[in-house]
Amino acid sequence: MRTFAASALIEPPFPARLNAHSAAAADRSGRWAAELGLAATPDDAGRLARANAADLAGRACPDAAPEHLELLTDLITWLFAFDDRCDDDGLGADPGRLAPVVARLLDIVDLIGDDAPAQLLESAGPIGVALHDLGRRVRAQSPPALLLRFATELRDYLLALLWEAANRAQRRRPVVSEYIQMRRHTGAVYPSLTLTDAAHHADPDATWLADSRVSKLDLLAVDLVCWCNDIFSYDKERRAGSDGHNLAAAVANETGLDEAKALAAAANRFNDALEAYLRLEPEVLAGGDPQVARFAAARRCWIRGTYDWSLRAARYH
Amino acid sequence: MRTFAASALIEPPFPARLNAHSAAAADRSGRWAAELGLAATPDDAGRLARANAADLAGRACPDAAPEHLELLTDLITWLFAFDDRCDDDGLGADPGRLAPVVARLLDIVDLIGDDAPAQLLESAGPIGVALHDLGRRVRAQSPPALLLRFATELRDYLLALLWEAANRAQRRRPVVSEYIQMRRHTGAVYPSLTLTDAAHHADPDATWLADSRVSKLDLLAVDLVCWCNDIFSYDKERRAGSDGHNLAAAVANETGLDEAKALAAAANRFNDALEAYLRLEPEVLAGGDPQVARFAAARRCWIRGTYDWSLRAARYH
Repeated sequence: MRTFAASALIEPPFPARLNAHSAAAADRSGRWAAELGLAATPDDAGRLARANAADLAGRACPDAAPEHLELLTDLITWLFAFDDRCDDDGLGADPGRLAPVVARLLDIVDLIGDDAPAQLLESAGPIGVALHDLGRRVRAQSPPALLLRFATELRDYLLALLWEAANRAQRRRPVVSEYIQMRRHTGAVYPSLTLTDAAHHADPDATWLADSRVSKLDLLAVDLVCWCNDIFSYDKERRAGSDGHNLAAAVANETGLDEAKALAAAANRFNDALEAYLRLEPEVLAGGDPQVARFAAARRCWIRGTYDWSLRAARYH
Repeated sequence: MRTFAASALIEPPFPARLNAHSAAAADRSGRWAAELGLAATPDDAGRLARANAADLAGRACPDAAPEHLELLTDLITWLFAFDDRCDDDGLGADPGRLAPVVARLLDIVDLIGDDAPAQLLESAGPIGVALHDLGRRVRAQSPPALLLRFATELRDYLLALLWEAANRAQRRRPVVSEYIQMRRHTGAVYPSLTLTDAAHHADPDATWLADSRVSKLDLLAVDLVCWCNDIFSYDKERRAGSDGHNLAAAVANETGLDEAKALAAAANRFNDALEAYLRLEPEVLAGGDPQVARFAAARRCWIRGTYDWSLRAARYH
């Protein structure tokens, strides 16, 4: 899908940059995943390494200090590892098995990085222990408002996985509007953006975050990241047996369009949203708040970074 | 169950108080629900009135100004109306039908009280229009940090309803730890507490909200409210055909205890959590922050208010 995506999507007109510490973060995150048991076999470890979390994180925060880059890299590594685990043995298509796992992880999220009872960590397994480690480090590194946001965004992500699992179990394919809403959470873009904000030292106060233009910009950024990812990964997912959780698949399901036309329609949605983003961004920046400027910069980097990372990732597919 | 609950639960040692404007809020909320079409028939309106949202809200914020009391009353009215709607035609047991409804409501939540596109309100129906009205008023009345918290807590509530629906569809009964975690969200206590904070003018900054003692107190308050409700409503739910979404039912399901023993075990959990709350509260208040003191007062009122409202509500069952 590299060729289609690369030709159909408007290239986000932001500079393509990569953090100089990305290679070191990749090594470190591989060791972190291995030590915590996130990759049970050499095959798992290889798959995780190929997903290249450090490249995506390094594009999302090109100027970040190593500890911020490493934390974002580890979060993305964790997300890939949990996604693999959900895929590998059907966990992600079985709400009855997934729900207790999600509930245990939500117990860990509720700690907002504070000490965990040993019994909880034991029952939560490597995925839970690694999530707790992330929370602990977010607490240590980030302003409290970002820690609270991170926790609530992880909660939405975990709850939304149950929606996806229920659909898979019922072989149900969501229509476009439902898919777009739920994809905002299943993609875990929000918690990733929040750690990116931490790396950019972007911590706008609540008045700004509740501003309707700022929140609209945030929504557009999240949609753009999700849809870019969907369009680049469509072909790989189709070959693996699509379950309808992809923007192009949702368009095809709802409209009856054939695959090529549905993909083109999905690409048009991305391009329209990118235009809307570019129109809105100057309005948001006109307020002149430096925290808001860093918040917008973090979103630019994610939009551009996802595009570049997807282009590179597509080579492996 | 009034007798069992009243004898088995320790009465929360906080004063029982009711807002002087509760009766007026009840009238006003009844009109609000009627005007927005939340109660389609006189039977629905009667059922909603008997649920007595204004009594619960009036106990949660005994000293609040009318506009704050009315907003909390309307939120609780909305929650009861949506719960009725989920019960009435099987919507709450059919994740495939519930998911598009939830997605539409999440679209409204994403607006955080800003203007909604007409098309969204049309497709969202009365429940969506009323939710939008609540968001609009929260935006107008509350500090932005509370508005943002309210939105994210509503999101968790809506997503958690899908977990409940998937369980019902599969006739799956959650074990205790999973139930306790998910009940925190299906009960919508968080957004209710946040509007209660607004009514108490309690807006602790993020440093306090992320404090591990404050967040633990918050969790205990939420659990106490949910469990009190479960124990009082157990008998009514059992008669209606329990689906396992009740603390006592989860205990019975997991342990094999008979009903009476499971109920006693659930009551013990409530009593232990109340003791933990009473031990922790002075530590939280020792910080001397007036916002935190109001935050704790709001939770006291909810714990006591739920107990008193449940006692009264039980008379109708």
